[in-house]
Amino acid sequence: MRIAVVAPSCPLKREAAEAVQAIVAKRGDCELAIHPQCFFSDGHFAGPDDARLAALREVMADPSVDAVWFARGGYGSNRIAEAALADLPDAARSKLYMGYSDAGFLLAGMHKAGLDVAWGPMPQDVMREGGDAAVERALNWIVKRDASALEGGFRGPAMAFNLTVLSNLLGTPLEPDLTGVDLLIEEVSEHLYSTDRSMFHLTASPSIRKAARLRLGRVGDIQANDVDFGTDEVAIFEDWCRRSGIPYGGRADIGHDARNKVVPFQRKMD
Amino acid sequence: MRIAVVAPSCPLKREAAEAVQAIVAKRGDCELAIHPQCFFSDGHFAGPDDARLAALREVMADPSVDAVWFARGGYGSNRIAEAALADLPDAARSKLYMGYSDAGFLLAGMHKAGLDVAWGPMPQDVMREGGDAAVERALNWIVKRDASALEGGFRGPAMAFNLTVLSNLLGTPLEPDLTGVDLLIEEVSEHLYSTDRSMFHLTASPSIRKAARLRLGRVGDIQANDVDFGTDEVAIFEDWCRRSGIPYGGRADIGHDARNKVVPFQRKMD
Repeated sequence: MRIAVVAPSCPLKREAAEAVQAIVAKRGDCELAIHPQCFFSDGHFAGPDDARLAALREVMADPSVDAVWFARGGYGSNRIAEAALADLPDAARSKLYMGYSDAGFLLAGMHKAGLDVAWGPMPQDVMREGGDAAVERALNWIVKRDASALEGGFRGPAMAFNLTVLSNLLGTPLEPDLTGVDLLIEEVSEHLYSTDRSMFHLTASPSIRKAARLRLGRVGDIQANDVDFGTDEVAIFEDWCRRSGIPYGGRADIGHDARNKVVPFQRKMD
Repeated sequence: MRIAVVAPSCPLKREAAEAVQAIVAKRGDCELAIHPQCFFSDGHFAGPDDARLAALREVMADPSVDAVWFARGGYGSNRIAEAALADLPDAARSKLYMGYSDAGFLLAGMHKAGLDVAWGPMPQDVMREGGDAAVERALNWIVKRDASALEGGFRGPAMAFNLTVLSNLLGTPLEPDLTGVDLLIEEVSEHLYSTDRSMFHLTASPSIRKAARLRLGRVGDIQANDVDFGTDEVAIFEDWCRRSGIPYGGRADIGHDARNKVVPFQRKMD
């Protein structure tokens, strides 16, 4: 099992790469090919758009690569997602793609293009408290399809997204068909008024209203409001589900933390 | 000329209300009816949704009111905008509605419903450095349709929005027809990566691509990135205009500041 790591958003830390390689060496059940592009830097990004795109296209087209693991989130994968999906080589269709957060732009577009994608922990997560377990969980899914890595609550096909990422891909060519899926949503580092506004945007969208249920992952690192917002993230989700008529499916075990579980994307097959 | 002030988003400061009333008294060409709801408080909002909606519906339906002036932005008008526009009374159609920032949710929906709306300074702006001039400019438009209050650069019909507000109303029932309009966009208190992401979302939207041009207002109070983003707001706008094929029309004299000009909404009449 050969896993390629590329960074379509922000650069991977050297110490994160070393820590993940140490975990992989100890496991002995896979090989991790960390692309040099992961350490490129260009302002906010892991190298310019062209370099990030070239590295991603390279590993997608490489028949010796069994899985593509996105190094970390941040911001920037949306800038190259459409180009990454143009004229897909056959080799791109026989591998798994995994990541979360900003990588959701790619997961969405790749799933829409028929590729096999999953929400799940990324190499950079090794830097979190308890991050070794997150990396082991991700590898257990990538290498062994170990069901204990999965978020366990879904009833049928599911997808998972960061709220801000999903809000920003609605109406774009990356938007996947959400018909009949359990939609798991988490958020991080936003004000609650922004979360409320994003939920307005999301639940007013006809394509989101086709989802079977919305489930709420963790909303972490909430930014302080100048006055207390007045409600919490659960009330916000329940409110917008009630207003829009989308069933609220309760909590989901995903988020920007070491406990983040794996959610393989699958659309409803009728 | 009787102008009603209501607060569909966040509460108006008492000292702002007093300062604006003093300006109005000195002018002697209009009467300002500041609705008590402006001073309500419920968590983040100027009272619960029901109270904000009732005050707005009340002044919209009041035939003695010539203009409705939104007290301030913040967040929350989207929560009541659809209900505000249901079963419009005739009296609602013979008045001007003015505000900006979060009030853009209402401006969009009201314009779509055929009401007369304009982007422009609000009562709370009197608290800004140089804010008296902003309030005088707004009143010069509301009372006298004084052309010196206008943003001067548009070639044809125009609309103006805060970037985050516009991004969050795309695909919702509030989205107006942008065909052939000069679209003026400003932003405040966001990171540049967020501005870049919002511009991706915006310019990937088929309805935004119908606009004649995008013009860039001021991007104020930019939040610090942990590494420098690498470009500025002008480069971001030019980049997304180039990628999407929407003409970039240069800078616009609007923003979250005392210099903010008035932009009456108008769709292209073919």
